[in-house]
Amino acid sequence: MKRPALLVIDMQNDFVQEDAPLRVAGARAVIPNVLRVLEAFRHRGLPVFHVVRVHRADGSDVEIIRKERFRTTPFAVEGTIGAAIIPDLTPAPGEYILKKVRMSAFLQTELDLILRSLGVDTVVIAGIQTPNCIRTTAFDALAYNYVTFLVQDAVAAQTPEIHASNVQDMRNIGIGDLSSDELEGFLSTTT
Amino acid sequence: MKRPALLVIDMQNDFVQEDAPLRVAGARAVIPNVLRVLEAFRHRGLPVFHVVRVHRADGSDVEIIRKERFRTTPFAVEGTIGAAIIPDLTPAPGEYILKKVRMSAFLQTELDLILRSLGVDTVVIAGIQTPNCIRTTAFDALAYNYVTFLVQDAVAAQTPEIHASNVQDMRNIGIGDLSSDELEGFLSTTT
Repeated sequence: MKRPALLVIDMQNDFVQEDAPLRVAGARAVIPNVLRVLEAFRHRGLPVFHVVRVHRADGSDVEIIRKERFRTTPFAVEGTIGAAIIPDLTPAPGEYILKKVRMSAFLQTELDLILRSLGVDTVVIAGIQTPNCIRTTAFDALAYNYVTFLVQDAVAAQTPEIHASNVQDMRNIGIGDLSSDELEGFLSTTT
Repeated sequence: MKRPALLVIDMQNDFVQEDAPLRVAGARAVIPNVLRVLEAFRHRGLPVFHVVRVHRADGSDVEIIRKERFRTTPFAVEGTIGAAIIPDLTPAPGEYILKKVRMSAFLQTELDLILRSLGVDTVVIAGIQTPNCIRTTAFDALAYNYVTFLVQDAVAAQTPEIHASNVQDMRNIGIGDLSSDELEGFLSTTT
């Protein structure tokens, strides 16, 4: 018996909106699919995690390699509109907000502990962006022995080519992929 | 002032030799370049880590997704020839052997603690294979704030295409790449 949870990753204004400095080019196009996935989990009362990158205003928790960029163009600063989840995907009461300061949602966060406490054995991933936060989170999920799925049309990158090569690498290592159309059927067989 | 360490990853018989069940197709071709890199670090007395995947014979520490495969074809089992580092790259006295049970050399290992104790701020990565153990290790190195470089012609995958798309993704996120030809010059400017 499988118990899945949904991770919606980095769907924040600073990474999604047209004029955002760290905009991921493919992000806006997948919003409707992310929303469908989110609603499927909501409808069944399954756990939903909104995973967000949130930095302290002084940049002390930013990767050193991005510090210079953060100094000139701060991003995902706690309490700003830029760090907020986009309005279409506003968390519902009872859904989890998980803050992180790195790419992987598992790295130095409480995610694994909460998933275990909830009895979750399967994670389904949506959001941005495929080669970075999505992929590091998916590989860590696999490492921690979660059965791991991407909703491939609810995940996006800067280009379709980058997205596709990353989905293929993940498939090669045993990370499943579903389309948002298949998700409802998947949830009914697993829960 | 930079202090680099070398991570040579998974250059073990079970993943490298012609008839090995989990052979990485590109691995044998890069052995001479890995050796050059290794010798450059040795020559300067810089820290070298031989990172190896080593599993208990009962498979209890294998990723669940690979357990069935391990049952039929055990790989990298502690104490076997298959788990041993290939003869060309045999560790020298004083070099570190770091055992891991997952892809990333940082995941639940003592690597970060040892690097910090040694005052290392830069890691240089060689070995196999680009999309999995190399990439997860490189992304974790970046997350832990190490300046991170691949020696791109001393790293290999199943196909040149997979290798190239992964090197490009890593470049995009700020992971440097060097050729084995450039390594000597790099070390003389950083140490």
